[in-house]
Amino acid sequence: MAALPSTMVALKKLNDGPGLTYSENVPVPSVGQRDVLIAVTHAGICGTDRHIYEWDAWSKGRVKLGTTTGHEFVGRVVAVGPAVRRTSVGERVSAEGHIACGYCQLCRTGNGHICDKVDILGIDCNGCFAQFVVVPEDNVWPVHVDIPDHVAAVFDPLGNAMHTVMTAGVSGKSVLITGVGTIGLMAVTIAKAAGASRILVSDVDPNRRRLALELGADEAYAASDPGWVKEARDATHHLGPEVLLEMSGHPGAIRQGFQALRNGGVAALLGLPSQEVAFDLANDIIFKGATVIGVNGRRMFETWYQVQDFLLSGKLDLEPILTHQLEFTDFEQGFRKMQSGEAIKVVLNLPQESNTTCPTPHFKAGTVNS
Amino acid sequence: MAALPSTMVALKKLNDGPGLTYSENVPVPSVGQRDVLIAVTHAGICGTDRHIYEWDAWSKGRVKLGTTTGHEFVGRVVAVGPAVRRTSVGERVSAEGHIACGYCQLCRTGNGHICDKVDILGIDCNGCFAQFVVVPEDNVWPVHVDIPDHVAAVFDPLGNAMHTVMTAGVSGKSVLITGVGTIGLMAVTIAKAAGASRILVSDVDPNRRRLALELGADEAYAASDPGWVKEARDATHHLGPEVLLEMSGHPGAIRQGFQALRNGGVAALLGLPSQEVAFDLANDIIFKGATVIGVNGRRMFETWYQVQDFLLSGKLDLEPILTHQLEFTDFEQGFRKMQSGEAIKVVLNLPQESNTTCPTPHFKAGTVNS
Amino acid sequence: MAALPSTMVALKKLNDGPGLTYSENVPVPSVGQRDVLIAVTHAGICGTDRHIYEWDAWSKGRVKLGTTTGHEFVGRVVAVGPAVRRTSVGERVSAEGHIACGYCQLCRTGNGHICDKVDILGIDCNGCFAQFVVVPEDNVWPVHVDIPDHVAAVFDPLGNAMHTVMTAGVSGKSVLITGVGTIGLMAVTIAKAAGASRILVSDVDPNRRRLALELGADEAYAASDPGWVKEARDATHHLGPEVLLEMSGHPGAIRQGFQALRNGGVAALLGLPSQEVAFDLANDIIFKGATVIGVNGRRMFETWYQVQDFLLSGKLDLEPILTHQLEFTDFEQGFRKMQSGEAIKVVLNLPQESNTTCPTPHFKAGTVNS
Amino acid sequence: MAALPSTMVALKKLNDGPGLTYSENVPVPSVGQRDVLIAVTHAGICGTDRHIYEWDAWSKGRVKLGTTTGHEFVGRVVAVGPAVRRTSVGERVSAEGHIACGYCQLCRTGNGHICDKVDILGIDCNGCFAQFVVVPEDNVWPVHVDIPDHVAAVFDPLGNAMHTVMTAGVSGKSVLITGVGTIGLMAVTIAKAAGASRILVSDVDPNRRRLALELGADEAYAASDPGWVKEARDATHHLGPEVLLEMSGHPGAIRQGFQALRNGGVAALLGLPSQEVAFDLANDIIFKGATVIGVNGRRMFETWYQVQDFLLSGKLDLEPILTHQLEFTDFEQGFRKMQSGEAIKVVLNLPQESNTTCPTPHFKAGTVNS
Repeated sequence: MAALPSTMVALKKLNDGPGLTYSENVPVPSVGQRDVLIAVTHAGICGTDRHIYEWDAWSKGRVKLGTTTGHEFVGRVVAVGPAVRRTSVGERVSAEGHIACGYCQLCRTGNGHICDKVDILGIDCNGCFAQFVVVPEDNVWPVHVDIPDHVAAVFDPLGNAMHTVMTAGVSGKSVLITGVGTIGLMAVTIAKAAGASRILVSDVDPNRRRLALELGADEAYAASDPGWVKEARDATHHLGPEVLLEMSGHPGAIRQGFQALRNGGVAALLGLPSQEVAFDLANDIIFKGATVIGVNGRRMFETWYQVQDFLLSGKLDLEPILTHQLEFTDFEQGFRKMQSGEAIKVVLNLPQESNTTCPTPHFKAGTVNS
Repeated sequence: MAALPSTMVALKKLNDGPGLTYSENVPVPSVGQRDVLIAVTHAGICGTDRHIYEWDAWSKGRVKLGTTTGHEFVGRVVAVGPAVRRTSVGERVSAEGHIACGYCQLCRTGNGHICDKVDILGIDCNGCFAQFVVVPEDNVWPVHVDIPDHVAAVFDPLGNAMHTVMTAGVSGKSVLITGVGTIGLMAVTIAKAAGASRILVSDVDPNRRRLALELGADEAYAASDPGWVKEARDATHHLGPEVLLEMSGHPGAIRQGFQALRNGGVAALLGLPSQEVAFDLANDIIFKGATVIGVNGRRMFETWYQVQDFLLSGKLDLEPILTHQLEFTDFEQGFRKMQSGEAIKVVLNLPQESNTTCPTPHFKAGTVNS
Repeated sequence: MAALPSTMVALKKLNDGPGLTYSENVPVPSVGQRDVLIAVTHAGICGTDRHIYEWDAWSKGRVKLGTTTGHEFVGRVVAVGPAVRRTSVGERVSAEGHIACGYCQLCRTGNGHICDKVDILGIDCNGCFAQFVVVPEDNVWPVHVDIPDHVAAVFDPLGNAMHTVMTAGVSGKSVLITGVGTIGLMAVTIAKAAGASRILVSDVDPNRRRLALELGADEAYAASDPGWVKEARDATHHLGPEVLLEMSGHPGAIRQGFQALRNGGVAALLGLPSQEVAFDLANDIIFKGATVIGVNGRRMFETWYQVQDFLLSGKLDLEPILTHQLEFTDFEQGFRKMQSGEAIKVVLNLPQESNTTCPTPHFKAGTVNS
Repeated sequence: MAALPSTMVALKKLNDGPGLTYSENVPVPSVGQRDVLIAVTHAGICGTDRHIYEWDAWSKGRVKLGTTTGHEFVGRVVAVGPAVRRTSVGERVSAEGHIACGYCQLCRTGNGHICDKVDILGIDCNGCFAQFVVVPEDNVWPVHVDIPDHVAAVFDPLGNAMHTVMTAGVSGKSVLITGVGTIGLMAVTIAKAAGASRILVSDVDPNRRRLALELGADEAYAASDPGWVKEARDATHHLGPEVLLEMSGHPGAIRQGFQALRNGGVAALLGLPSQEVAFDLANDIIFKGATVIGVNGRRMFETWYQVQDFLLSGKLDLEPILTHQLEFTDFEQGFRKMQSGEAIKVVLNLPQESNTTCPTPHFKAGTVNS
């Protein structure tokens, strides 16, 4: 293999206002002792990236100017640090974007996804909207040869949806999903594959409701129609759905979701409200005997194995969700299509340095996922 | 409705040897304060009934001569005791065959299925191979109008399979089922509906293996081929299946199942060995960090609701399992077809007294299962 | 035994304003087929009774004038209905005050405590502030001979505390209890007995904080001091307590409790806020990966067995909580001492009809709780 | 700090027969990139060490001649590899003795304790019966300043006992411990601290039974008396204990333990039978609806935090178990006292090189366990 280039192109947050800057001559990141350098081939645009692109209040408070954005990707390993043990140059990999500290009590007990000292790729440190990205080897995920690139590029949001569905537990249960944006739609196909007996969704957007039905939802309610809560309860033995997956972050949807929920039901919350929510704790949680689970990120790496195994089982239908694949230089178009609702998920193709591209590897016996 | 008859036909265990006696002029059972009298329309023949028919060692030790056999059925309520509160004459019902005491600590904490003082219908008291059967109201299960009779007649074994699958937890997991007789085959279609990512089965009978594949198994191994354990491990990332559902009761299959099981895996045991089994506790359970769950009966009534909801979701495929429906007087033929392997599950049609038959009820709003 | 009297004394809610009326010549309740009539010997005054006594907004909306109040008690069975099976005249019993419907899906799956159709004794039907009370046999709890009357009289609130502690799971964990009124104090002694490694409490009342320390709390914070949240986190490895038991219902305490809670922690909510609470769902539940459990009543009868077994183990210290035992006619004094904070828990002694009093029974082999 | 010595003393398994050899001039182990070198100050003798000392069939098949034995210890860090991130020279540490591969599916999902490729310190690689031992940094456990050396030296077996107790769940439950050797006795004090409502033990040795009672057991049965199973059931409401902790590995005790276990109970198995055990699966697990959990090692590092927090809470009483502390050169005496039953747990004091001993460290804010 030829020498690595010293510079690359990347999308950087440079100005204190909306937009990202397509930057050339960005230095290729350096590789620490336990790090892996990856040539990114495909990267997904996340709702979080859109927040940064639109430079909303949250972004201003969190992201430093100069940061390379992006955290969903797949690529090829092109270099490894001297203390790297199991990752080899040429492997096709994705990576967990939560870089946990690794040594606090939460990390040492399998809860790294809620480590207090976590850095998130493309938010707190340079990310994957670039030709090269560096991550600790502990975050690397070898991608199975049977999983195509544009799917491997979105393991991160698939993981959010998977963690939410699996932590709630849907097998044999009626499930209500409030909000079917990208992750909500992923949750529909996952809940179906995971054995939900009945799937109800609510959303304001008729296009998304149509997609949800196409992916296997049994009922799709217009969130603007106040009668849907009663309909949802009637459709589930007049008791309400046994599981609520809250994926909108919208205060009204949250309230309606809890009203619909069955006594003794389980609610998993992923959608982030932008401010405090007024909650009828007495009626919606306490008298109801409900269990509410906050969902942050993905379990490392239980969720990743679940995503892989569901993908390999052929039970997930992602094509209606992965609506657009664009060249990296067309990123503006990608953000605009997401804003207009035309696109659900956009994947960008990164330009490849011909001399660092490796032949397609096949997994050998003894590798992590064989 | 006309008066009830005072006698009926029934299959009784009368002689200390193989066979059951088709008996006429059997008194219709009397109805206690909290009891319900049901005109049986359809009854399933269970493996346990076959044990009694063949009068094996277990049967001789347990069943008293004179007992009316049978415990899987559907019928119509024809009379209720004075303290019955919610069950009405005319309802189409099945019933839980484990008659628990109702007041021991196990019963009062939701574990009536493992009550020490349980009587089993058709084994410890008179059963449903008869025109009429009496059960306590607490055991009655109203059958949903959308569930056909020959399926309602086998809620009992479906419940065994459901309890085994759901207590193990198969959602998103690889599952091995050792032994695919009637309940094992039911477990295949249930595990698929409940979200298993991969289903492997082993059995000695090629016909059953073919049916398992037809119902959704990914691999079916000949139990006589000693190499299948390695194949099963290789087919599950070389780690072994995450879940074992043991449904054969055969010592060799039990041992092989545990050898195949992944470290940290879960084994649910339903099949009953006829004698003690030599177990390599150190390697197959302790070093492996396995969890083993003994499964007895069905949870009352969590399992019944699960069966109902899976049936109503249209996800279960039972037709390949319910192979034969015969007239009551042809019961000998039913037992013989089971013995030869020609039949998987046989359902008997009971002769109806015309004046006690009720019109097909439709569920009204507010009934238990609406 | 002599004949039962036809009338009795009782505390009734008669006027649309504060106070309860000591009423004579109240008819002794009639006994249904499955019911048990109990001569009340001791009854506890609950915070809910105080709400009715003070006739607050909630009481006006829920309690019908004419209702006999009270739901915590112990007494002797004096009559049983014809369909009663296991309860005998003379038994010393308490009773679960939630009278669930018994046949909805929640009731039939072990969740009767959150049945939608529940009636609560002394709120929705006549209660135990009376010489006689009638309850369904299914609600009766035989009291172990080694448990004294004034303790047996408060099984109901002990059950609330027990359910909260056990559903959260405190064994080996650090626990924060926000609000140590009667039930919060009971939770302190239960959490200690159940194996909590460290117990922190917060309350506005210094007397209650002192009692909490006496019962085994390691730290007691003044809820008015805003610095206590940081102190509580510092006292638990700077990560926060692993478990929050919310027993105040106060919006400020709820918010502080969640701020203190460790990432990945469990919060069980028992205290009822009187209105909607503004909640920072994103930071306090979602990013934190917290699990929140609404607690309603007691599990029937798992919680009751837990209370009994902890009492028999000698590990619970209730004497500092059961501060007052008064004659029935002094009930006004009891309510006033609760209002002033002088009393924690008040138990009333009911006047006994000499001819209906039974000798102290001793449990025989084979009874429910032997 | 002065330079490290190049040689040390160690106990090695050198001859194909009973005994260990006190060896001088053993090379100090070299330190890999991610490794930590520890000057051992105290080391516990485990039952496994005794198997190797006695050179039984298992040892012959597993341990290579030339191995330095021992895996329970505490010491000071004296050198770290270049890729070590958080461990500093001078820290007082113990270490997890299971060296898992770190990258298989089990390791990456929090189940490193049942990794298939695990190496055990002092069995598969050189251990801690030596002045210096090397372990990967990932295995290092910083010891809290309030925990004394002779206790820190036995975190490993305490972890076995803790994992067994906590995985079974004893809070509010009756617990039977079959076999109270070192780990069984540790389980008594842990089960008491973790909130068991009642603790029963069985053992053949009257001295151990006496110690169990001293540590908090309510009943101690002579395992040789066949009537103890009925006594244990009678002492637990005639239903049997809710939890069985099997710590003997003896086939008879295992069978009796399962006979005593309550229907629906949980059995955690730690004791290793030396051969296959004949098991009445039908009656002892299946009809009983029991859950059986195989326990291997300790959860990394959940169990370690639990041990630490219980020790810091002051609830564990270990002094009656830590019977002997001997000089390293007296190791023969230690093994003999264990063989005779005179000693329960023996801790050896390792000779210190004066120039590598560090002053007692105090934990600074921000360290792992502060």
